Formats: sequence, C-alpha cells, structure tokens
Amino acid sequence: MDINFNTRPKLNIFIPVLYLAWQDDRLTPKEYTILNNSIEHAAWLADDEKNFLKDKADSSMPPSRFELLEWKEKISTALQQNKSINNIAGLGLWIAETLQAGFTKSETEIITPALLELENKFGIIGAEYMASFREKRDTVTNAYKTLQRFDVKQLAALLDGSQAGIINNIKNIISTPEFTLDIPTNTLEYREKVLQWCKLLAEKGYGSYAYPVAQGGKNDIEGYFTIMETLSYHDLSLVIKFGVQFGLWGMSILSLGTEKHYKKYLKDVGTLDLPGCFAMTETHHGSNVKGIETTATYNHADRTFIINTPERYARKEYIGNAANHGEMATVFAKLIIDGKDYGVNTFIVPIRNKNKETLQGITLEDCGHKMGLNGVDNGIIYFDNVIVPYDNMLDRFASINKEGKFESPIPSDNRRFFTMLGTLVGGRIGIPRSALAAAKTGLSIAIKYGDQRQQFGPEGAPEVPILNYRMHQRRLMPYLANAYALQFGLQYLTQRFLHRTEDDMQEIEALAAGMKAYSTWNTRDTLQECREACGGKGYFTENRIGALKNDTEIYTTFEGDNTVLMQLVAKNRLGKFRKQFGEMNFSTIFSYVVDTAKTSITEKNPFTTRNTDEAHLKDPNFHHQAFEYREKEIVSSAARRFKRLVDEGLDTFDAANIMHPHMLNIAGAYLDRVILEQFQKQLEVTKNKELHTVLEKLYQLFALHKLEENKAWYLEQGYIEGVKSKAIRKMVSQLCWEIRQDAVPLVEAFNIPDSCLAPIITYRAAEA
Amino acid sequence: MDINFNTRPKLNIFIPVLYLAWQDDRLTPKEYTILNNSIEHAAWLADDEKNFLKDKADSSMPPSRFELLEWKEKISTALQQNKSINNIAGLGLWIAETLQAGFTKSETEIITPALLELENKFGIIGAEYMASFREKRDTVTNAYKTLQRFDVKQLAALLDGSQAGIINNIKNIISTPEFTLDIPTNTLEYREKVLQWCKLLAEKGYGSYAYPVAQGGKNDIEGYFTIMETLSYHDLSLVIKFGVQFGLWGMSILSLGTEKHYKKYLKDVGTLDLPGCFAMTETHHGSNVKGIETTATYNHADRTFIINTPERYARKEYIGNAANHGEMATVFAKLIIDGKDYGVNTFIVPIRNKNKETLQGITLEDCGHKMGLNGVDNGIIYFDNVIVPYDNMLDRFASINKEGKFESPIPSDNRRFFTMLGTLVGGRIGIPRSALAAAKTGLSIAIKYGDQRQQFGPEGAPEVPILNYRMHQRRLMPYLANAYALQFGLQYLTQRFLHRTEDDMQEIEALAAGMKAYSTWNTRDTLQECREACGGKGYFTENRIGALKNDTEIYTTFEGDNTVLMQLVAKNRLGKFRKQFGEMNFSTIFSYVVDTAKTSITEKNPFTTRNTDEAHLKDPNFHHQAFEYREKEIVSSAARRFKRLVDEGLDTFDAANIMHPHMLNIAGAYLDRVILEQFQKQLEVTKNKELHTVLEKLYQLFALHKLEENKAWYLEQGYIEGVKSKAIRKMVSQLCWEIRQDAVPLVEAFNIPDSCLAPIITYRAAEA
Repeated sequence: MDINFNTRPKLNIFIPVLYLAWQDDRLTPKEYTILNNSIEHAAWLADDEKNFLKDKADSSMPPSRFELLEWKEKISTALQQNKSINNIAGLGLWIAETLQAGFTKSETEIITPALLELENKFGIIGAEYMASFREKRDTVTNAYKTLQRFDVKQLAALLDGSQAGIINNIKNIISTPEFTLDIPTNTLEYREKVLQWCKLLAEKGYGSYAYPVAQGGKNDIEGYFTIMETLSYHDLSLVIKFGVQFGLWGMSILSLGTEKHYKKYLKDVGTLDLPGCFAMTETHHGSNVKGIETTATYNHADRTFIINTPERYARKEYIGNAANHGEMATVFAKLIIDGKDYGVNTFIVPIRNKNKETLQGITLEDCGHKMGLNGVDNGIIYFDNVIVPYDNMLDRFASINKEGKFESPIPSDNRRFFTMLGTLVGGRIGIPRSALAAAKTGLSIAIKYGDQRQQFGPEGAPEVPILNYRMHQRRLMPYLANAYALQFGLQYLTQRFLHRTEDDMQEIEALAAGMKAYSTWNTRDTLQECREACGGKGYFTENRIGALKNDTEIYTTFEGDNTVLMQLVAKNRLGKFRKQFGEMNFSTIFSYVVDTAKTSITEKNPFTTRNTDEAHLKDPNFHHQAFEYREKEIVSSAARRFKRLVDEGLDTFDAANIMHPHMLNIAGAYLDRVILEQFQKQLEVTKNKELHTVLEKLYQLFALHKLEENKAWYLEQGYIEGVKSKAIRKMVSQLCWEIRQDAVPLVEAFNIPDSCLAPIITYRAAEA
Repeated sequence: MDINFNTRPKLNIFIPVLYLAWQDDRLTPKEYTILNNSIEHAAWLADDEKNFLKDKADSSMPPSRFELLEWKEKISTALQQNKSINNIAGLGLWIAETLQAGFTKSETEIITPALLELENKFGIIGAEYMASFREKRDTVTNAYKTLQRFDVKQLAALLDGSQAGIINNIKNIISTPEFTLDIPTNTLEYREKVLQWCKLLAEKGYGSYAYPVAQGGKNDIEGYFTIMETLSYHDLSLVIKFGVQFGLWGMSILSLGTEKHYKKYLKDVGTLDLPGCFAMTETHHGSNVKGIETTATYNHADRTFIINTPERYARKEYIGNAANHGEMATVFAKLIIDGKDYGVNTFIVPIRNKNKETLQGITLEDCGHKMGLNGVDNGIIYFDNVIVPYDNMLDRFASINKEGKFESPIPSDNRRFFTMLGTLVGGRIGIPRSALAAAKTGLSIAIKYGDQRQQFGPEGAPEVPILNYRMHQRRLMPYLANAYALQFGLQYLTQRFLHRTEDDMQEIEALAAGMKAYSTWNTRDTLQECREACGGKGYFTENRIGALKNDTEIYTTFEGDNTVLMQLVAKNRLGKFRKQFGEMNFSTIFSYVVDTAKTSITEKNPFTTRNTDEAHLKDPNFHHQAFEYREKEIVSSAARRFKRLVDEGLDTFDAANIMHPHMLNIAGAYLDRVILEQFQKQLEVTKNKELHTVLEKLYQLFALHKLEENKAWYLEQGYIEGVKSKAIRKMVSQLCWEIRQDAVPLVEAFNIPDSCLAPIITYRAAEA
C-alpha cells in the first residue's frame, strides 16, 4: 500500500515545515540538509516513510499546486480548531493527531524537541507563521489613525496673530476664479498671466502697502511681508514678480532715494503703472557685489551721469522685469568723478518707453527658460554710455554738491556700501517667509495624501495608510516640526526688523541672512521629501510639488547665495561684522574667545552625559544648555583654530579658506539656538491646554531631532554618551509616531486655500 | 596754535587704530570705551591732545572722506618704507617718527605696550591688517589650479572597458545634428521628437540589441545596458522612452513569453514598428504589485481571456507609451479560472490600431504634464471586458492545458509571482546606470564651471576660482568620488547579473534593488549640489542641470520606490529573501545572528579606536574592517531587536514597522561595503602608476567620507573615539583639497559629448 499523508497520518507532522518551504521560497541547500537530517534522525519513522518525506523536500520535485493547497487547508483548519498553537511543532502534532496518528507518549517526547530544534534552525517565528493563516488580524499599525485633539481654528488664529485680516483678504483673492492655477507651458503667456495677477493685486492697493501714505501706501512693511508670504501658497512666479516690482524696485527708491524720488516714482510703482527693475547683479559679480564694474561717470558740464557697461560680462544679469515689462531700473554702478572712483552708488535709468520699446543705448536680452519661475521675465541689460540727469542719482547716502564734489555722511566707501545694502535687508525677510509657505503647502499635500494612501498590510488584514509606517513618519514629521519652529523664528526676525535701532542693525542683518539660508534650505529638503513621499503622484504637475520645488530651487541662491550668507553670519558671530559681504578674510575675534571659552567646561558632568530619563530628555533647559554649549564651543574653537593657523604663518585668506566648513557650523548652531528659544517662548505664552500639548510635542521633536542631527559632534565632545544619543533617537521616533495622529489637523491649521492644494489629497474621497 | 596730526606728530600713533575703526565699521560702545581709556591713560599726552583724539574717536563726528584717505595714505607709505612692520603699535610709531614726533626712550617704553594691549583688546590680527595695504598679495588659494597629472584618454579607456565600441557609436549618434538638444516646451512636440530619436536608434539596430539573433537582435544584454547608460548623457526622456519600448515592453515578452511570442512580436518591437507598454502598476497598487486588481478571466468555451478593470482605481497608471504611441501592452492581471484566483499572470492586450485609434473596450487617458520626462507619453488604461485569444497569455511560468486546468512548474502562486518579477530585474540595472550617467553630466558641468568662475579674493589680489574654496570642494569632491565608486559597483552588479545562476538570483535581485536605490539617491543629491554650486547659472535650462534633476527625480520612485527597495534589501540581508516585495513582515533571521554576532567583539581595541596615523586612516584593511563591522553589527542588532519586540508580544507586523529605519541602515551598510570592495579590486588591477595614484585618492575619499557620514554610529559603538573621527574629518578635507587639482581631468575622463554639456563651462573662453 503506497505511502502518503493520508495512509500515514503521523507524516503530517512535517506539513507545516514543507508548506513554509514551498510556499514562499526555494529550499536553500543549507535548509535542505537540515530538513533531511531531521527526517533521517526521526527514529519513529520507517525507512520508506523517510524516503517519502525526503522526496517532498527535494527541490527538483515540487509538489503540485493542488497538493500545496491541501497542506494549506490542513494548517488553516488546525489553527481554527486550536487557537493556542504557537509553534510548528504543536501545529504538526495537532494535524497528525486529528488524523488519528496515535503517537505513543515516548514518541511525542522525541518528536516535539526535534521539531522545535528544526523550527529554531530554520529561524521560524512561530507567532508570525500562525498569524499568516489567521482569518482576521488586528495590528496596532492597522488601527492607528488621525485624531482631532485640538481646535484647528484656534491654532490657525495663533499662527496668523495680528496679521489674520490681511492673510484672509489675500487668501480670498487667490481663491477667486481669476487666480485659478492653470499655468501655461508657454513662457510668454505665463509671464503675461503673472503680470495681470500683479495688476489685480495692485488695483486693490496691495502693491504700495509698504510705501508712505503720501504715495498712496499704508506705510505697513509688516503687512507687505504678510502679503508676500500668503501669496506664496499660490504661484511662486507671482510672488517673485510681486517682490521684484513692489519690493526690490520700489524699496530701492524708498531706501536709497529721497523725498524727490518718492514724489516722482513711488505712486506709479505701487499701482504698477511704472514697472521697474533692481539692477545690481552682474554676470561676473553676483555674491561679490562690491566688485561690480558698471560705471556712472559724473559730467560737470551739464551735471549728468554716463552709465556704461565696460565689458561684456559686466552686464546686469538675472534681472527680474528686464526681459519684457520693466521701464526703468535702479542701477548699481561705481561713481566716477574726475577719474576718481567713489565706490558703488545707485541711479535710476530708463530702459523702455511706455510702448515697451527699448531705449537708445540700452541692450536687453532674455535670460530664457529656467528650471522654475518662468512667469518672471528675467533679463540681461547692457548700457552703452547712457546719459541720465543729476536727479536720477539716489542720494540718501551720497550726493554731489554744487561744486561737483562728492559728499556723504559716511566717509568710508566700504562702510557706505554696506549701509546701503543694509537698508535692503527686507528682501531677506520676505524670501524665507515665502519659502516657509511653500514648505507648508508641500507638507499639507504629502501628509494628507499619506493619511489616505494605503499600501501593504499584514496578511489577512487590510492595507495600511502609509502615514502609519514609522519610516514614512520619520521622513515627514521632523519637517512638520521645523515648519512650526520656523514660523516662530521668522516672526521673531520680523519683529526685530520692525523695531530695529542703529545699534543692532548688524545683528539683524546677520540674523536675516542666516534665516534666509536656513529657511530656504529647509524648504528644499522638505519639498524633496514630500515629493518622494507622494511617489509617482508627487511627480505630476497637477499635484503642485514639482512647481513648488522648482520655483523655490533658486531661493537658495538669490538674495545671497546661502553658503556665502552663512559665512557672513559666522563672521558676525565671531565678533563684530567687519569686512564686506562674503569676503573671506575676517578679524577681531579673540576678545570673543575670552568671553566664551570658559563656559565650555561646566556643562559636562558624568551624570548628565549618560542621563536618559524621559523627563530630562524632554526638559527645555537641557535642550537650551545643549544648543548653547554647541554654539559657544564651535565659535571659540573656530577662533582658536584660526589664530593657530595664522600664527603658523598662513595668510589670513588661506586660513579663512580652511575654516569655511567650520564657519557654516557656527552659523547653523547660532540659528538653531535662536529658533529653539522662540519656540520655547511661544510655549510659555500658549495658555490653551490642547494647543499647548500639541505644540509642546512639536517643540520636543524639533529640539531632539536637532540634537540627533548633531549627535556626532556631541559624542565627539563627550557632551553626551552613546546610551544617551540612542535614547534621543528612540524618543524622536516615538514623537514622530505620536504626532502622526495630529499631523492632518496640524497642516489644516496652516489653512491653505483648497485651490492651492493638490487633487491627490482627495482622490479617495472622489472614489467613495 | 590748533591741534591736528601735523602740528602734533606724536598723535599719528593712533592713526592705524582710527583708520580701522572708521574704514569698515562703526565703533561699538565697547570699543569706544577701550579706545577712550587708552587715550585717557596715555600719560605722554597733554589734555588738549587727549580731547582732540577723543573727538576723532567720537562716532557722532565722523572724519571727512578726505581725511580718511589721508590716513590711509600715511599707512600705505609707512608699510612700503618698512616691510617688517607686523603690528599697529609699530605702525603707529613709525608714522609718528617719520613726522619727527621725537619720542623719548621712556615714552616709547610706555607707548608700545599700551598700543599692543589696545591691539589685543580690539582683537586685531596685525598680519591681516598689514596685508590689506600691501600692493600685491600672494596666497596659496590664489595660486592653486588644475593640473594634468595623468592621461585622460587612458582613464576613459579604463572606465569604458570592453564596451568602448558601443559607447563611441552611441556618442557619435547623439552628437549628430538630428540629436541637437533643443527641447520643445510643447509636450506633444517633445513626445514626437523623442519618438523620432528612438526610431533613428532602432533603424541602426540598437533597439533589438538584447533580443535573440533570430528576431534580428544581437542577444547582447550587456550592450543594451551600455546603450541605455550612454544615451543618458543626452535627453533622459529619450532614455526612458527607449527603455519602455525595448526594455519593459520587449523584455516582458522575452522574459515571460515563449517562442511563439518571440516569433510573433519581438522583431517588430525591436524596429519600433510595434510600440507597446508595460502595464503592471495600478493607481491603488504601485509598490504592492501583488495586490493588483485587474482580472483576466478564462473562458473555457472559446479559450479566450476577458481582461477587466473592476474599479476605477484598479486602472493601469503611469504607463509609458500609453498616452500616444503604444499599440499593445503586457498587462499584469489576476488569472481567474472557474471563479478561482490563480494569482498574477501576464497577457498581451492590443490597445490601439495602426492608425492609433483606441480599440473597443479600451479607455486611454493622458497622465498630463509632469515635473520632468515630458517627452515620455505616460498614460492611464482602463479595460472594459476586453477579450484576448488564448495565445496572448505569456506562458513561460504558467499555462492552461487542454482540459482548462492551470499548470505551472512553480506550485506556489506567491513564488511564481516573484520568479516572474525576478526575470525583470534588468530594469533595476539599467536605471542606476542611467542615473550615474546623469550625475556624471552634472559633475562635469559644475566642476568645469567652478574651475573658471571667480568670485572674491584677498584684498590686493585677483579673485579666486570658486573651486579653490574649501567649502566648494567639500560640496563637490565627495560626489566625484561616489561617481567613480558607483562606476565600479555597477559594473560588478552587471557582471553578477550576466553570469547569474538559479542559486544566487535572490542575492542578485537584492543587490540590484539596493544599487538602484543607492545610485538614484546619489544622483538626486549630486545634482542638487551641482545646481547650487553653479548658482544662478545652474538655474538656466540651457545649462542642463535643471532638466537632469527633474528627469531623474522620479528615478527614486519608479522601478520600485527606493524606501521599499531598501527594506527588501535588508530583509534579504537578514536571512533569506522570504515574503513578497516590500511586504513588511519578515522571518528566519536568527540563524544569521548566530553566524555574525560573535564577530562583533574582536574588532574593537583601545589602540585602534584612537589611532589617527595617516597610514592607518588610509589603510584599505581598516576601511574594510570598519565597513564590515558596521554591516554585521547593524544586522545582528536588528535581529536581536526584532526578536525582543516579538517576544514582548508585538504582532510581527507592528514589530517590523518599528524596525523600518533600522532596516534602511542595514541595506545602506551592505551596499557601502560591496561598493568599497569593488573600488579596492579596481585599484588592485590598475597598473598604470598615474592612474593608480589618482584613483587611490578617490578611493580614500570615498572610504573616509562614508566613515565620516556614519561617524555618529561608530562613536556610539565606541568603534572609534572623538580624536579619530576628527582626524577622519580633517583627512576628508585634505583629500578634497588634493583632488581638486585633478577634478577637471577626472570629469573629462567621463568623456561626455560637448553637445550634452552646458554653455557655462566655456563662458570665460568665449569672453577671451
């Protein structure tokens, strides 16, 4: 009588192992050996039974699909009959016994350990093996979902603060049909659409918001920043075009000119009747503006200036409004009087007439297609000895008197130059705020999508929303925390700027430069993660992330290259802000060292470095101490290192060059600390319990995630030890997991108009 | 007689300090006090002299521009007269004495220390102060430049190896006028241009390269990969369209079909007379392909299949060639016989006729505009009970016999599914190689631009090429090293694939999945850095980086989402490759732990962890030990952790979820080690001394930069200590500095056609 699992019930003991082997995988040679040995050594099997089983475990002789299903059936039935089975030994025995295998007690005593050993050698996790057969499977990951634990409207109000009125006005405007986001792929059409959008905003008085009341403005620079930021939920070409016209062009007149210029130009600038450019950057001098070569030669005879481009690459490049719409430009040029160079000054130069015809002596080129912002008409300007009248010199900081002599309240050309630039710092507040808005849009899309999009799941259970996956949370939650942290950090920067005094201008300039770099890099990284988190859907133009990414891509470069800006911030932190923007040598740092070096020691003690208590890790004082320690230690070590290099005889320029990467860390540590403090201050004033709870979690994630990012440095310093850095990592993951349940309400609090979000966030709703 | 610097020569001592104060900076209150004190305490000054000097140091009373220039003049003259002056004390004294101040010896003895103290308190670096007045200034940074230390052609030959012939043929083709890179912004025009490009390549026989000779091919899959890679220097829409037609569509027939299908289709596929699609992904099932819902119901009566889309989001999405050109598609669908589900199988389904009219029962939609790859016509396909004949089932792995019964050599539906997918692994070799080519193009552009672009410089010296700045080198050189490392890593993957056996298929599948993720993420980061390194120029479409970035953006998602692929790699490393693609639970890992855990201890010893010798840090054995230690330790800790979580009673799915971030590290550590080994092997076989020298530097940078990236982990483990991680960081910077001189020749060795590079790399040449 032939041998099979029905004629020889006891053989059924091996069905669970055989099924596992054939179901998912080939048997590896190693497993084949293991299985064969265990069959071979099964004293309770007859030789013919052993051979039968070995055949079943022979990779060259697969069972039929039908037989495999039979095995599965037996296993499922057994697991339904006996829910307590939790290893394949017990499972095999149960199957065999239900078929009256009738093992003797002694047999069972041999069989069970043998099978357990097999299970062990195969590394089978009984629990999982059984789970894959269960009808219904409940997992924490399946059950996890979005909760409503706080009032979204209240949080939105907290974020908007005193600006809620303007914010809502702008949101209403960009939600109207005229502002529907259907972006033409044709560049010229796109530019015209953006121009029309700007005009609609100007008609409503939003163009002149920052200008004096006398020129039809509201003298409200804070409002202007708010407008820029809120428009940034919409198309970013609109934002930049708006900023070029009303910010760069208009504000250059306001900041560098005087009453006569306000009267003559500002009203028309604010209504967009006079589109203009801000012509500072040249092809060969971008970061190093001080090196620009355009000249403005004074003409004693008729008190005029001759504006000239001395060589091809001294042309003005990347100039917004220059390719199509601009009629005038604020031109940065070196003032020459009687052959002497009086440094960089600014002049208003007409480039087109009202019919948009290029004026004589002016050559205009189109920068052409770009990665993004194709709704902005960036162009190139050449000047061929263009003559402009005396009054076109913006004369707030320098002028030429009746005798044709140069006059200025600031004797140093160098210092005058940076005082001029300092007045333009506003741009470095508008850009990081615009960047943050773009990051918020990306987060709103990616988080809402992740909350709906389901993929994979446990066997015998539904698929899981991808936002329930720890990795997905790790990718998005820290950026959500950054967005909130930056919100408070940028509000602080804005307030510092609004209430600035002569004395803290240098600090504010450095803070603005740093925040610009910090925020735009954060947006770059946030949107990259959002794109990937949305998979193929994130690649479709209709889902906006692509446009947001490409439009903000240049934010890290314009208004000052981020890397150069961070150097500038570092130099300010290293002492006082000597020397020009971005120039690489710096000095006067050692007094600072004396101030800070001593604080370095007290911070470390063996208890703290190993302390992994939850209370300690979540303690704002610990965070602040750690952030401040890092900031001060990096600064003083930089100072020491720089001094050593110079003492070793290096040219200070070469020494500074070696210091570059170190300098970036100085700036980063400073900005981290400033932002941390602002987040802490926000918690102190947030009385609403629910809001405080959720903001505190975001704060903790921000603080601990920053510590995690820099843990290598802290470990090198011995400021924390391995146990602590591991505990921090664990807590970051835990916070990501907890915040996931608030993530959707947290992005809803950004209150971004639906018209600015993406179709994917509602695709399941559509389906239902 | 009134007091001034001429009537009282000794006062000139203060000119250097006063000039510094007014030239660059406002006096801070602190400095004001310091300066005043030092004036106040100058016993050798009369009261009226003190008052005169205090006025000069009064921030409310700036000197005239003329006076400031006078001071500068005095300082310059003094420094020319006496080159040995190196502090402002000596400088002040010299100026005063040249005006016959006539100090007494005792006065000098008081004055010098007083001024030195002042210099100290102001933190002035004498050397730099003096340097800023010197006529000419030589710095290492200025003098640094590109060298020709090896034969570029020889290195190019080394990289091309046996494929040089095909590579040159393709480069010649993409350099012809027909392939000029003027990309239409109009999507339909772009798609037609790309189709024409593909036809030109097909005409020359490059479409069928991998197909059997009988079907007009060369049966050369290696050549096919080389073609894909080389085309990637050109437009990437071309590459993907080429890959969709000849790779996905054609290879699905070759891999999943049998002779009858080859005969019927492959010739026309290779000539592009039969454009087709690879229709696997559905809207609701991308990563989790196994969950697709499209059905193919077998019809006993006439032996046909009914292909159907059961619900809206079971539609096929993102399908290349579907929107415009495809006439047929390989459709992945669940085979249903007599109501029973036999798992995923594949069927050839016509979707358009020769006139490109959509066939009955088929609905086609356009995916619309995308971030990139707009030359590829991605579309959506719905099937409304479309009937296809029996022969349209691709029957290599499963078929239906005469009796209408399902037959397959692989009994497990699950295993059959992954065997099928396994045959498609080729796509995961083509994509990372294409990604690497795009990274090389970006590096060629950014490095050549950085070698020419000058910005900033020491005072009194020319501006410096930005590639001479340490920070700029830090941004680009590690990616240059990665490009070379990946070149050798991907060659290894290709060879493993070409010489694959049944037994190592699972390992090769994991390696390919990992390399795909590794290379495409590296390209994402490389191109991001290249864009920023080129500043505004990098933003212009004409300079290509934007297109390269946007086209490769989706590389991290298609052919398997990188994050999911890394999970898959990790699971393979954790033991054997059970369970399906990307599913989150895994098992059989403990045998592995036993294998590796023990190796963990021996590695660490107090000497090694603190060893900072250059020889040791550059020792390949140290690198390999460290990489291998990390790999094994992370794997075994993962296994221990997973077991602990399950033992604590977590569902294995929840436990696996907690492990996700850990899993990515497992995959990363494995891939780093594999690539390191291949780079080491390459060095062993490189006999040419000059090539060996430069490749060894790149190798060292790759190895040490990876250690630096992971130093936090090594520090946590106590595998290295702070002194060593700092030494590694320093050596990475030094290697970046050294490789900068070879950087241009190193990218020239990529030998990318000029027609595929950017205008900016030659803009200075144009200028001259």
